[in-house]
Amino acid sequence: MIPHDTHLNIGSLLFEGIDQIDLTGPFEVLSRIPNSTYRIYAKTMAPVRDVKGLWLTPNATLAEAPPLDVLHVPGGFGQEALMEDSEVLGWIRRQAGGACSIFSVCTGALLCGAAGLLKERRATTHWSAFHLLPFFGAIPVNERVVVDGAWISAAGVTAGIDGALRLAAELRGDEAAQAIQLHMVYAPEPPFNSGTPETAPAAILEAARRSVRGVTAQREQTARRIAAKLGIAVPALSAE
Amino acid sequence: MIPHDTHLNIGSLLFEGIDQIDLTGPFEVLSRIPNSTYRIYAKTMAPVRDVKGLWLTPNATLAEAPPLDVLHVPGGFGQEALMEDSEVLGWIRRQAGGACSIFSVCTGALLCGAAGLLKERRATTHWSAFHLLPFFGAIPVNERVVVDGAWISAAGVTAGIDGALRLAAELRGDEAAQAIQLHMVYAPEPPFNSGTPETAPAAILEAARRSVRGVTAQREQTARRIAAKLGIAVPALSAE
Repeated sequence: MIPHDTHLNIGSLLFEGIDQIDLTGPFEVLSRIPNSTYRIYAKTMAPVRDVKGLWLTPNATLAEAPPLDVLHVPGGFGQEALMEDSEVLGWIRRQAGGACSIFSVCTGALLCGAAGLLKERRATTHWSAFHLLPFFGAIPVNERVVVDGAWISAAGVTAGIDGALRLAAELRGDEAAQAIQLHMVYAPEPPFNSGTPETAPAAILEAARRSVRGVTAQREQTARRIAAKLGIAVPALSAE
Repeated sequence: MIPHDTHLNIGSLLFEGIDQIDLTGPFEVLSRIPNSTYRIYAKTMAPVRDVKGLWLTPNATLAEAPPLDVLHVPGGFGQEALMEDSEVLGWIRRQAGGACSIFSVCTGALLCGAAGLLKERRATTHWSAFHLLPFFGAIPVNERVVVDGAWISAAGVTAGIDGALRLAAELRGDEAAQAIQLHMVYAPEPPFNSGTPETAPAAILEAARRSVRGVTAQREQTARRIAAKLGIAVPALSAE
């Protein structure tokens, strides 16, 4: 682990069709890590829209990024368009190779998988894509935040906040993370118990699965192609 | 309450120096409310930076906003610069006058207060500004989310997610809110218990209070001037 008094370069990947809170949830934490520089990187400097239309703007291009100490890879439906993008996958591979921590949120894990980086790693992702992790050689772990050595993966969307606080503690100690948590007033009180497939009412889960069926089918096709490229035996799909 | 089959216009206020997750946390919910149009409004179309540097871009100007059914007022240190801004306060006042729900997050409550809208209302705000609520005639309630008729206020920063889910349930029913919660995988597991002044370690709270002392002192001066304008007897300050 890097000593607390060593400066850290922290970077997030931004792309069209991201689920914005995969980026902005961790942003609230990553931008407050002591003795660090945090930047958002994208293929070009053009603003991009998140899956529901929020305009987000990078700080610099992928090519301009220094070697990162911490790499953050968010997800969202737009991840699918990058699964065979050699520029983005190559960037993730290079940056991950030199980083002390790699942090995926939601289907950002699939991008790391497509870059060939999840083989035999314990990882998690959004529930709608969880069954696809074995296509990349990953060991799926149904937990909100999974730590495997330098790799931290957060399940879906808001799990990025929990993951980023875990990461902050790893990098700078518990007290630094607790100070950020206090600033963020992160003492959540969800009004319902419907945040996971295990707890959501059955009808709501069924409707949610239906609403992402098209995306899920496309992700499965892509995952099969990538598994073949990576030389991973294609697992049987037990369920969506 | 507006019937579920009536279309809703939902709008968030964006300004320089906002705390981005006051906007982006609720965005994840508000942008998914069935049968609604959600837009972000600012004084001009220019991108603005949040308090830690995230570039955010509005969808339209304040002048272009239709009469809103739901008004969302976020906070952040940048709120201070708008506390005597007649254009913004006038906009909040006009929009709140016609809205069925007004939702403040963090120090967005102070903006509503400066617009003269919190008199005798139960409300909350970020812990660092909580003692200022009486300057605007509000009744401070130390809860994470406070509902007072059409008014919903969320304490600080990430409380906006809980508040937005409460609001979604009020507007479109519990099932709509639960479906959004499932998409967001909002089943939080904070790694520490440090999200409120009551739970944070004493040394961390003290350091956090010190770090915002300058902002707090300025907010107090502004609150005194506004209290005088609103004809509210200035309360004695018991503590920061």
